Amino acid sequence: MGDYQHILVMRDGDTVRITMNRPERRNALSADHLAELLAAFRATAASDATGVILAGAGPVFSAGHDFADVAGRDLAGVRELLTLCTELMRAIELAPQVVLARVHGLATAAGCQLVASCDLAVAGHSAGFALPGGKGGWFCHTPAVPVARSIGRKRLMEMALTGDVVDAHTAEQWGLVNRVVPDAELDAAATELLARATRGSRASKALGKQTLYAQLDRPEVDAYALAVEVMAASAQTPSAKEGMAAFLAKRPPVWPTGRE
Amino acid sequence: MGDYQHILVMRDGDTVRITMNRPERRNALSADHLAELLAAFRATAASDATGVILAGAGPVFSAGHDFADVAGRDLAGVRELLTLCTELMRAIELAPQVVLARVHGLATAAGCQLVASCDLAVAGHSAGFALPGGKGGWFCHTPAVPVARSIGRKRLMEMALTGDVVDAHTAEQWGLVNRVVPDAELDAAATELLARATRGSRASKALGKQTLYAQLDRPEVDAYALAVEVMAASAQTPSAKEGMAAFLAKRPPVWPTGRE
Amino acid sequence: MGDYQHILVMRDGDTVRITMNRPERRNALSADHLAELLAAFRATAASDATGVILAGAGPVFSAGHDFADVAGRDLAGVRELLTLCTELMRAIELAPQVVLARVHGLATAAGCQLVASCDLAVAGHSAGFALPGGKGGWFCHTPAVPVARSIGRKRLMEMALTGDVVDAHTAEQWGLVNRVVPDAELDAAATELLARATRGSRASKALGKQTLYAQLDRPEVDAYALAVEVMAASAQTPSAKEGMAAFLAKRPPVWPTGRE
Repeated sequence: MGDYQHILVMRDGDTVRITMNRPERRNALSADHLAELLAAFRATAASDATGVILAGAGPVFSAGHDFADVAGRDLAGVRELLTLCTELMRAIELAPQVVLARVHGLATAAGCQLVASCDLAVAGHSAGFALPGGKGGWFCHTPAVPVARSIGRKRLMEMALTGDVVDAHTAEQWGLVNRVVPDAELDAAATELLARATRGSRASKALGKQTLYAQLDRPEVDAYALAVEVMAASAQTPSAKEGMAAFLAKRPPVWPTGRE
Repeated sequence: MGDYQHILVMRDGDTVRITMNRPERRNALSADHLAELLAAFRATAASDATGVILAGAGPVFSAGHDFADVAGRDLAGVRELLTLCTELMRAIELAPQVVLARVHGLATAAGCQLVASCDLAVAGHSAGFALPGGKGGWFCHTPAVPVARSIGRKRLMEMALTGDVVDAHTAEQWGLVNRVVPDAELDAAATELLARATRGSRASKALGKQTLYAQLDRPEVDAYALAVEVMAASAQTPSAKEGMAAFLAKRPPVWPTGRE
Repeated sequence: MGDYQHILVMRDGDTVRITMNRPERRNALSADHLAELLAAFRATAASDATGVILAGAGPVFSAGHDFADVAGRDLAGVRELLTLCTELMRAIELAPQVVLARVHGLATAAGCQLVASCDLAVAGHSAGFALPGGKGGWFCHTPAVPVARSIGRKRLMEMALTGDVVDAHTAEQWGLVNRVVPDAELDAAATELLARATRGSRASKALGKQTLYAQLDRPEVDAYALAVEVMAASAQTPSAKEGMAAFLAKRPPVWPTGRE
């Protein structure tokens, strides 16, 4: 699907599989690569797919920004690159699809940021996570934004300040990923979790996911004000009415298709 | 105590036991049920009780909203219901008592929200927690508000998007409940934890709890500004003066009764 | 180093070791003690040290505020004391150095607050953590501010409301400390973790740490706005340019000294 050079995009039933495919560059996120990922998420958002699996081809998930693409940029050029990168991360959070990261090998810097930005993540035993800027000369400022919102403060500080790799098991304990499985079972586990996460009304799920991210960062009183309005309004949608009618009639629901 | 149809309210020493008592409806939270719970928490707030144990009679803790009470409501009607529900959740957080959820069986949707809104929670092995709207047609927008403030983001997304039940052990690991014990030990464990959480000056504890919720959602600088003022002012209360005097004199404190 | 009565300050390579040294008062944080700690952190901030280890001499890490220094103060006096204490906590967070708490024995009230305010913490098996105001007459309002930002809400409530001691292993599970080791290995573990956390460019690390605390409490969109600007600007620093050049040339980097 699409005319991409750095990524592979495949439709598989209701799922879109987006695979970073620059294995010789360890799936480094050059501007062109980021732009293709953003285009693919935007095209998917406009489709009727219900889920996305984001994966990497080759030895690692993604090594983060491509220094060869950063070193020559001036301030405006780096800002442009990071703004594009941030747009991608936000597009993942705001996508109407459930987005799951399928992680094998290293996910470092902006690669780790991708994992933190996906709604769900399944990691193979080979997976490792790092914010390596902390032991170098250019700190992982933007990758730390979604990582800080996924794990506790002391763990964030350890990752960001040491730059060292956190193994898959520790990442699961810290809440950076949902599941860890042997690499041979990674595809099955990703598919299984995504299947459970994409049941029900597509329209209700999309509104639900977007409202979650909107309320997460607000003070609780503001979060409630938002959630009450959205939940009251959404009770009038075809999806909600069908869900309640089916429940009360003890019959399986038939979800409306399309937006509401 | 009180003239209630859907709940049982019992005073037991310094503790008020509020039991949802619609077992035939799996303690579903109809408007009438919510209104009685709110009335009971308000009456308790005005009493000299120091703790509340919230429990459910019958096979489950609570199944959440009662679809039979939602399906026929228009936008204004659902908003009214959810506003009432939110008032109950906030009343629990703002109560001068320590509120502990004693959870057996399922706590789903607004039932799971109740657990997240209580200060403390003890679960039996039979307990399970879910935000099932995620796999239906009406997303659990408001239940996700306090759940999002209790567990990590990836775990929240898994609960909210899959709608599946999280078992008691996992809920403890994720921080949604404080303790898991065999169901036969649930009452003893709830009573023991609440006893430890209600020691000391009642007035100091109430101010402490209310300030915790007020500072939790604020940026750290704002939280400190609030906490410094409250802590400085409260150092002048009879409770604080008695506590410090008793400590320095190496004698047991005698706490003032009533408000300060 | 310095002319201190309540603390010991030693320079050891690139690390400054600050030791609370009022063992006979269990390292209680009187105004004089707090002022010396603040002065030591400020002097260190102006130095070329890259890390700080904060420890306590004697049987415990720190027992928190010194009631003998609080009991006689009026409102303005307590506010002054707590403002000084808050300045110390913020100075630790804003220090250009990585600050690691080395914790043995009890860390209670403002002592526990110190641990939560340090970037990293290593605890010995003997360590215990408590917010004991919750079972007394003067609630631990300000200590709860950084503790609330380090551990989950139900765990915070348990600590703050019961006032009971949380052991080292539990503190690690909850994310209040990074590591737990036998007391005999505490110094080695603290030194090892700090060494890993202080590699790389000093200027990049200081900016990184300060930006982390600035973005942590903001809504994600605001956090990104900040992080993108800082990261774009910092790409133009000598440290970033050297790091990228060394990486691309496959040679070890040589970090610039001093501020950027």
